[in-house]
Amino acid sequence: MASLHLLSPRGFTASAVAAGIKRSGKLDVGLLTCASPVTAAAVFTTNRVFAAPIKVGRAHIAGGKLQAIVVNSGNANACTGKRGYGDAMTMCRLAADALGCSPTAVLPSSTGIIGHLLPMKKIRTGIAAAAAGLGNSRQHATDFMDAILTTDLKRKSAAVEFKIGRETVRLAGVCKGSGMIGPRMATMLAYLTTDVAAAPPLLRKLLSVAADESFNCVTVDDHASTNDTAVLLASGQSGARLDSSAASKKFAAALREVTQSLAWQIAADGEGATKVVKIVVTGASNVAAAKAIARAMANSPLVKCAMHGNDPNWGRLVSAAGYAGVPFDPDKAALKLQGTVVFRNGTPMKFDSAKVSAALRASEVTAELKCGGGMGHATIWTCDLSKEYVTINADYHT
Amino acid sequence: MASLHLLSPRGFTASAVAAGIKRSGKLDVGLLTCASPVTAAAVFTTNRVFAAPIKVGRAHIAGGKLQAIVVNSGNANACTGKRGYGDAMTMCRLAADALGCSPTAVLPSSTGIIGHLLPMKKIRTGIAAAAAGLGNSRQHATDFMDAILTTDLKRKSAAVEFKIGRETVRLAGVCKGSGMIGPRMATMLAYLTTDVAAAPPLLRKLLSVAADESFNCVTVDDHASTNDTAVLLASGQSGARLDSSAASKKFAAALREVTQSLAWQIAADGEGATKVVKIVVTGASNVAAAKAIARAMANSPLVKCAMHGNDPNWGRLVSAAGYAGVPFDPDKAALKLQGTVVFRNGTPMKFDSAKVSAALRASEVTAELKCGGGMGHATIWTCDLSKEYVTINADYHT
Repeated sequence: MASLHLLSPRGFTASAVAAGIKRSGKLDVGLLTCASPVTAAAVFTTNRVFAAPIKVGRAHIAGGKLQAIVVNSGNANACTGKRGYGDAMTMCRLAADALGCSPTAVLPSSTGIIGHLLPMKKIRTGIAAAAAGLGNSRQHATDFMDAILTTDLKRKSAAVEFKIGRETVRLAGVCKGSGMIGPRMATMLAYLTTDVAAAPPLLRKLLSVAADESFNCVTVDDHASTNDTAVLLASGQSGARLDSSAASKKFAAALREVTQSLAWQIAADGEGATKVVKIVVTGASNVAAAKAIARAMANSPLVKCAMHGNDPNWGRLVSAAGYAGVPFDPDKAALKLQGTVVFRNGTPMKFDSAKVSAALRASEVTAELKCGGGMGHATIWTCDLSKEYVTINADYHT
Repeated sequence: MASLHLLSPRGFTASAVAAGIKRSGKLDVGLLTCASPVTAAAVFTTNRVFAAPIKVGRAHIAGGKLQAIVVNSGNANACTGKRGYGDAMTMCRLAADALGCSPTAVLPSSTGIIGHLLPMKKIRTGIAAAAAGLGNSRQHATDFMDAILTTDLKRKSAAVEFKIGRETVRLAGVCKGSGMIGPRMATMLAYLTTDVAAAPPLLRKLLSVAADESFNCVTVDDHASTNDTAVLLASGQSGARLDSSAASKKFAAALREVTQSLAWQIAADGEGATKVVKIVVTGASNVAAAKAIARAMANSPLVKCAMHGNDPNWGRLVSAAGYAGVPFDPDKAALKLQGTVVFRNGTPMKFDSAKVSAALRASEVTAELKCGGGMGHATIWTCDLSKEYVTINADYHT
């Protein structure tokens, strides 16, 4: 599994170049392509302020087929009006011309600062250079990963290999995301490849379910981005087909594994993060209530600061549950911090504060809130809030 | 007006002592009293996890009369179960015994850390000492103000004097609040005194409207507290009565002035704040939509960091408006930062970035979002997000 990468599923090539959009001179234009149109599914941001490439991407994915993805980092092409929309269309046309396909078979993505027009001369040169360098080696996959990063400190990828019948199926994905992470029914940029064959409606459904249990369960700052996109391309070249319920289930489990791994990596690489904070809510009246409570706890800056300081200040977690906007009765609730019960049935429990504080000095910490006897449960991944978050978002100037 | 204080309205005395609840040795138990029961109104937190004194206070204010408020800082008496409820009742009984009134004429308040039992021996000694030291001097008012503070760096008070008919009416208030500030239909601790006479239902209505336009428009971290309380006591000793619509309107205007001043002072003294950020939303479809958009913008840590860094990164403000959960069309919107239009009709405007950045170096900065042609408008006050916020909430240990 460690040896698999984004281009391990059969039928994909990729490439990336430094086109000069990022001031750092790092890779910033990428292509992910197939030899002919393949089955594709995507989910996008639910933000009412969505970027130009989202508008174009929604139209191009409508038929359930894509041949290529063209992406740039360093500029989000969001809040850029008609000119921005034209630029996103041009990105598709440039990629299509270079690859010999229809512009509507290309999905465009952009990530970076909002409100600046794309430097189209650099984009044009970049796409041409990227198209000339396509390949399917590990280095090509790594370059593509790098070309989608912005404030990320780490690359994020996951891949699995499994059997459907006698065929070996591969599924891989890469993503970016560190700040402006609060996806709702959407995600940040994520690109998934597989060589299974599947009908577009099924692929769409499987991706939607997986996104809901992975990317939509991550929050860094609850700020839903204008550019969130997750795309799954299925080349069909493994010979395996999702034509039975058993095959679909097996693929769905693999997809959940890959997307949850990617989501976890986003939380771990949250801006300024020093640890992942896992919030588990059980016993709520239903899943929506559990999610609302978990999200309120995960987004409280007071909770995030306490986790940063290894402070077992559990009152911040319980009080956040109380303002989530859904029924919550503290008299029936219990809270565990790193396995230690600190609050039960409305009453503080005696616990060794120094011991729990020491347990909070971990790279992943868990807070578990049992709300009562309901069946609703949810898990949300977030990160702590450090001074480094403020440095990244205040001291660095646009 | 500068010479007025909490005890300027006729009929009130106060006192405060250091009972040893705060480790710092500062004042932490206060009494605010009248010679006999007066008309009173209060609004409380809407958090489903509410502190024991809130439960007791709701019952005691039900009849619209109070004679005293007893408050401690350094411990919130929240999430403390039946024992905590008994302790809040005991606080009322101790104050009532010392003052010679009914325990149900006393409203208890607590503020500080959640989940710790009150040190009742210290509370008992403190209330007795405070009752022995009651007076109505400026120093008594100042001591009471100090006794309600926690992480606040500044005292917060406001007072006005105005005529109703030939009578001079005074209205004064004090409050505390710096962190865990995200009141909704409620507020942090605020105590208001007036010597006007009013019927309980009218006073309740006036306070509710004023709180909605003041305390409920402030957010520091969107974390609604377990202990939010605002109480208005009306002694009637000015001789003026709110028995006409004209008199009520005059009083309502004064109440809005005092409560908005107090609310502004909370934002200005937000944990780690270096400036007040005023978010003005106009042209929304209705007031609820305007408030939702303003609140989303005010609570985004990315927006708050940008304001801290004097960064005119307006994309963060516009994108926050897009995920507020209410209709918002960027193509019809316009955003001003400190008076400069930076975005209009879906398109970035050319502006002098250095000039706007310089304008953001002010103690109060304003972002104005016009959403369209609707009648809904709202103003929310918040503060910037600095490293000091993290220091206060992570490095300081419970």
